[in-house]
Amino acid sequence: MIRTIQVELGERSYPIFIGSGLLSQIGDRCVEAGFPVRSPLLVVTDSEVAPRYLPALEENLRSKGYTVASHVIPAGEASKSLQVYEEVMTTAISAGLDRSSAVLAMGGGVVGDLAGFVAATYMRGIGFLQLPTTILAHDSSVGGKVAVNHPLAKNMIGAFYQPSLVLYDLDTLATLPARQISSGLAEVVKHGLILDKEFACWCREHAGELLALDAEALGYALERGCAIKADVVGNDEREQGQRAILNLGHTIGHAIEAVGGYGVFLHGEAIAIGMAGSALLAAKLGRDTAIYEDTVSMLSALGLPTRLPAEYGEDELIEAMMHDKKFKEGKMTFIVPDAIGAVSIVGNVEESLVREVIAQLKKEGSPW
Amino acid sequence: MIRTIQVELGERSYPIFIGSGLLSQIGDRCVEAGFPVRSPLLVVTDSEVAPRYLPALEENLRSKGYTVASHVIPAGEASKSLQVYEEVMTTAISAGLDRSSAVLAMGGGVVGDLAGFVAATYMRGIGFLQLPTTILAHDSSVGGKVAVNHPLAKNMIGAFYQPSLVLYDLDTLATLPARQISSGLAEVVKHGLILDKEFACWCREHAGELLALDAEALGYALERGCAIKADVVGNDEREQGQRAILNLGHTIGHAIEAVGGYGVFLHGEAIAIGMAGSALLAAKLGRDTAIYEDTVSMLSALGLPTRLPAEYGEDELIEAMMHDKKFKEGKMTFIVPDAIGAVSIVGNVEESLVREVIAQLKKEGSPW
Ligand SMILES: NC(=O)c1ccc[n+]([C@@H]2O[C@H](COP(=O)([O-])OP(=O)(O)OC[C@H]3O[C@@H](n4cnc5c(N)ncnc54)[C@H](O)[C@@H]3O)[C@@H](O)[C@H]2O)c1
Ligand SMILES: NC(=O)c1ccc[n+]([C@@H]2O[C@H](COP(=O)([O-])OP(=O)(O)OC[C@H]3O[C@@H](n4cnc5c(N)ncnc54)[C@H](O)[C@@H]3O)[C@@H](O)[C@H]2O)c1
Ligand SMILES: [Zn+2]
Ligand SMILES: [Zn+2]
Repeated sequence: MIRTIQVELGERSYPIFIGSGLLSQIGDRCVEAGFPVRSPLLVVTDSEVAPRYLPALEENLRSKGYTVASHVIPAGEASKSLQVYEEVMTTAISAGLDRSSAVLAMGGGVVGDLAGFVAATYMRGIGFLQLPTTILAHDSSVGGKVAVNHPLAKNMIGAFYQPSLVLYDLDTLATLPARQISSGLAEVVKHGLILDKEFACWCREHAGELLALDAEALGYALERGCAIKADVVGNDEREQGQRAILNLGHTIGHAIEAVGGYGVFLHGEAIAIGMAGSALLAAKLGRDTAIYEDTVSMLSALGLPTRLPAEYGEDELIEAMMHDKKFKEGKMTFIVPDAIGAVSIVGNVEESLVREVIAQLKKEGSPW
Repeated sequence: MIRTIQVELGERSYPIFIGSGLLSQIGDRCVEAGFPVRSPLLVVTDSEVAPRYLPALEENLRSKGYTVASHVIPAGEASKSLQVYEEVMTTAISAGLDRSSAVLAMGGGVVGDLAGFVAATYMRGIGFLQLPTTILAHDSSVGGKVAVNHPLAKNMIGAFYQPSLVLYDLDTLATLPARQISSGLAEVVKHGLILDKEFACWCREHAGELLALDAEALGYALERGCAIKADVVGNDEREQGQRAILNLGHTIGHAIEAVGGYGVFLHGEAIAIGMAGSALLAAKLGRDTAIYEDTVSMLSALGLPTRLPAEYGEDELIEAMMHDKKFKEGKMTFIVPDAIGAVSIVGNVEESLVREVIAQLKKEGSPW
């Protein structure tokens, strides 16, 4: 069964295919998408994914007549840097990529974001295909945000650049470590928490199947997650308004990643804590405290953390938030849940409230 | 007198203002363009331009209530690198630029291309204003091509990103060295050679006034140059077809820059030799040899070289062209004049013909 979601963005619209065994269709898909065989392709992947899936991918592409160059980056967030970006560019130039060429990103969000920024800026933009191999990458493969990190701030350097298509082979997820599975599911359930209560509850009920990578449950969850995100992005591609709701949990989450060092908490883990924090902030702003209880139970069911270790300094977290893109014109803006499945964008949040939330996230037992 | 050209690109349309004393209007123009005073502005300029024009610019912006950070790059093509790009990004982040901020590029094409790529990719794109201070930058300020160089190839990394407006203060041109004046005029006359015979002839007739920076003649020449380019770009923003005619002389010109080292020949000088080469190629392809004679007389009148020094190796030049973006799918494509004021895009040009052209460009006396 192949599930298909169409991301509607006018002339930049593209399909997402989700199913088992899809990587074996990649060569045909490239031909279908109009990439000429005489233009070299560049596969970007990482050191965990390459040994498992790269040889078959290269062979499939070559069997259709393509010339293929591959660039394997070290696995991990540290590769989303300008230095690695330049190295990938060097490979692209040396391999003779031209304006009709495409970059194929096979991996998680790190590979997708980095390779997407290469595709967006090589000769001012060439073809781009996403082959996600993590659950989290269901999120990064919808919406066209591509980026690298600056030592001073995450995702600070980037572009909006849509792929031609996304091919999501569920079989590749089988080799994901357990923590990565939970981390990815954080973004899946996030889409429910923002806009679809029923889906959020479904995730809690089917947490066991999801964590066990049951193909039917996982296929459905990724389809719903992608579809919700595609809807939001379709209405606000360049994040001038509503798209910001997708950042639920990310202001605090990014600060946790920045202060702890990338990789201490995985991205999904950090935003799980951030989503718990947003629900605490919601309570301070007068919303029902049950939102917090529900949020925490949903995240916990998926094996995600919702508390912050004591060693995270309040001042450092606040400082990190100041650098965050979500601070527009000096105001502190947060995405705050109004209920499970509904959020508001709240500007002018007082720093003192955020400090209280951080303190509560560190308290043992009940935060109240 | 303020001359205004509107670059028509749908929702990305923008005006170019050309005249004397315009820099003193910059603060008002920023307010008019909708940049909020609470968002910091970043001025990028270079070590030649900064001592002459930066203090007044900063003061003007501050007098309107803006917070201003400035980043001064070393003058010269070497600053169009990923390393300097990263340094400018660091300044932007440290200065707290947010999504409503703008980058102001005050300088020549190097500053414009680099600062434009920063604006295009800081937080995935913020405001961008061009304040050209060279004649050559009349070219780079129209059309939205922004880029940095890769050690292996010029302008290889970049984006299409349109400014909000261009403010061209003719007074700043008074401090340009003579070679830079001629170099800039090469791109001016190029626009005539491509599409407007009358204008190309006008440039030859008024060469003396142009070289002396006569405000009336220069204002007219820049207006015509910008307008011709704006027309072409308006019909093909992303260079999928006709926009490529603007590359007249650039395949050979870029190779000369790459082989000689940037700065031995200035950009305009290199493309002047390239345009002479294109006219020689035209003769080989059956066009009238008078095109070459006319091209050379127009370029010479503006103080530009049309011959290649003997030490430039044929093999190295060909090799450099192979890396050039204009080689799509392995074919050698050249812009070839059909007459003064008319060009064709010719694909599949034989390497042997290009080698003959290079040899002729090096011959002393008549090339025939
Ligand atoms: N662009 C967007 O809209 C967007 C959205 C969300 C997240 N992101 C970005 O995505 C990144 C996080 O994504 P991620 O969690 O996928 O990280 P990741 O790419 O680092 O992958 C996580 C780990 O799993 C490994 N891995 C990947 N696929 C595997 C497989 N099939 N089998 C075994 N191991 C595998 C990787 O090597 C890595 O070690 C962050 O940089 C984040 O900023 C971007
Ligand atoms: N984006 C485009 O469409 C496009 C088009 C043409 C050229 N370009 C690029 O533009 C660059 C060349 O532009 P350029 O010739 O303006 O080079 P430039 O920016 O290096 O300026 C030339 C020299 O003049 C100095 N200078 C600038 N303004 C001055 C002033 N008012 N008084 C005294 N000195 C001054 C500079 O410091 C520099 O040393 C190249 O990198 C080329 O690739 C881009
Ligand atoms: Zn995220
Ligand atoms: Zn040029």
